[in-house]
Amino acid sequence: MGSTAYVDGRYVAHRRALVHVEDRGYQFADAVYEVIAVHRGRLVDEDEHLARLGRSLDAIGMAWPASAQAMRIKIREMLRRNRITARGIVYIQVSRGVAPRNHAFPRGCRPVLVMTARPLPVFNRAEALRGVAVVSTRDLRWRRCDIKSTGLLPNVLARQQAQEAGAFEAWMVDGETVTEGTASNAWIVTQDRMLLTHDASNAILNGITRQAVLRIAAEHGITLREGSFTLADAMAAAEAFVTSTTSLVKPVVCIDNTMIGNGDVGPLTERLLDYYLSHMGEPPSAAVCDGRP
Amino acid sequence: MGSTAYVDGRYVAHRRALVHVEDRGYQFADAVYEVIAVHRGRLVDEDEHLARLGRSLDAIGMAWPASAQAMRIKIREMLRRNRITARGIVYIQVSRGVAPRNHAFPRGCRPVLVMTARPLPVFNRAEALRGVAVVSTRDLRWRRCDIKSTGLLPNVLARQQAQEAGAFEAWMVDGETVTEGTASNAWIVTQDRMLLTHDASNAILNGITRQAVLRIAAEHGITLREGSFTLADAMAAAEAFVTSTTSLVKPVVCIDNTMIGNGDVGPLTERLLDYYLSHMGEPPSAAVCDGRP
Repeated sequence: MGSTAYVDGRYVAHRRALVHVEDRGYQFADAVYEVIAVHRGRLVDEDEHLARLGRSLDAIGMAWPASAQAMRIKIREMLRRNRITARGIVYIQVSRGVAPRNHAFPRGCRPVLVMTARPLPVFNRAEALRGVAVVSTRDLRWRRCDIKSTGLLPNVLARQQAQEAGAFEAWMVDGETVTEGTASNAWIVTQDRMLLTHDASNAILNGITRQAVLRIAAEHGITLREGSFTLADAMAAAEAFVTSTTSLVKPVVCIDNTMIGNGDVGPLTERLLDYYLSHMGEPPSAAVCDGRP
Repeated sequence: MGSTAYVDGRYVAHRRALVHVEDRGYQFADAVYEVIAVHRGRLVDEDEHLARLGRSLDAIGMAWPASAQAMRIKIREMLRRNRITARGIVYIQVSRGVAPRNHAFPRGCRPVLVMTARPLPVFNRAEALRGVAVVSTRDLRWRRCDIKSTGLLPNVLARQQAQEAGAFEAWMVDGETVTEGTASNAWIVTQDRMLLTHDASNAILNGITRQAVLRIAAEHGITLREGSFTLADAMAAAEAFVTSTTSLVKPVVCIDNTMIGNGDVGPLTERLLDYYLSHMGEPPSAAVCDGRP
């Protein structure tokens, strides 16, 4: 973790990044958040992340803790203080504020902004492209998964299941439908080469990486559809992958011990990773050469 | 709020009751809690609350932050330090601990116990018995409402709706079924005098007050059933009420602007409040005389 955090107006040493126990983020998960990646020193899709933060705040009737311009300045100051010049992530959380415990919105409390940041090791395409396993689990979450709230206990429990099974991620299944991963969106490529991911309803968090990959895929003329698919569809797919701020476009080669396709990283998945790397500002040469045999 | 809080092993001034921003309670709602009432200087159903805390901890794979005996001592010390000799409440929260942000359970972090307490004004039976209005709202919560977790954002949003409508509580409706209130269980008395409340499934939090009232009602030979009822059933009921640690047995006289019965406090509701007051240690004479015309 980086050395410096931001807590309610102040940059503080990470070990002194403290909030009050009656911060509503702590007692009610009355808070929303964003995670923004830094790649080659540049914030990836910062505008989109801030716009989504605005939507989450709106959805739960919470005010911005600072103007958009001030947010941008604070985020950059976090990068500077934590010496994130190449790769890293910034975590941004806004809670409704500190007030005596009572469910309804308190009067006169102001939102609390908290940020942490950490540098990440040098990017490695081979590592990014390494295929992972996922397990399926019942989607236990609430009905407003489109709001990026800190009410993440179901995600925590599902991810723990994945970890105990030696898998990278858990795909959550509501009825028959695969909604998404615990911290990533779920995608498949059908046998007839159609890219498919759950539509951006209340049942999923509309990932910023998801949106970027959808745009990129459309630009490159890839056949795609936003709609539901089942676990059986996923197991019968030609390719599968997840997208997220930190996983980028991550090949899934195994679901519940069933191999996807021939168990190798799919060609369309690899193309989409490279398109996405280019979107992040990774030079094409590096994207293509680095890590290929 | 009381002057003294307890945070991770220390009694501290309430204004200094701070936790780290990477406490998983703050970033993941990876925490469970209990609220215990104090009435006439006595903790009400302490054993039952601690047993339920144990079930919540178990359900999410979390260890106790202290032995049951140590918990009891700490709770009493909170009462002493906050001078709660008559009436009050103790809030107890246990989070999985502080660790670098990652969804799965971290290794080697220990649970963080936080407590706050506050005295309440002298008990007033007339006030307890005052009928309130509720509004209905869609139950947006997750599918493990039996776990008393701090993932309360849906409850917060529903309670805010109630407050904006000038109501005391919101009753959450899943499909056709009334599950419970945002911080209370929902009850009706049907026209044929049967007491009815949702069964203790994953869809509700099995209130300690709910359990006490069920026991008391059975002891007094009141016809009762644990099972689902609809909003229409509730509106057509003879009586309605909510139960909770702080609301006790609270008459509901109006649901979504529909008067329940003749709009007065129901006779069975009043009886149950008095039985419950007796269970809390309120002398029968006071219960019967105070506040009656």
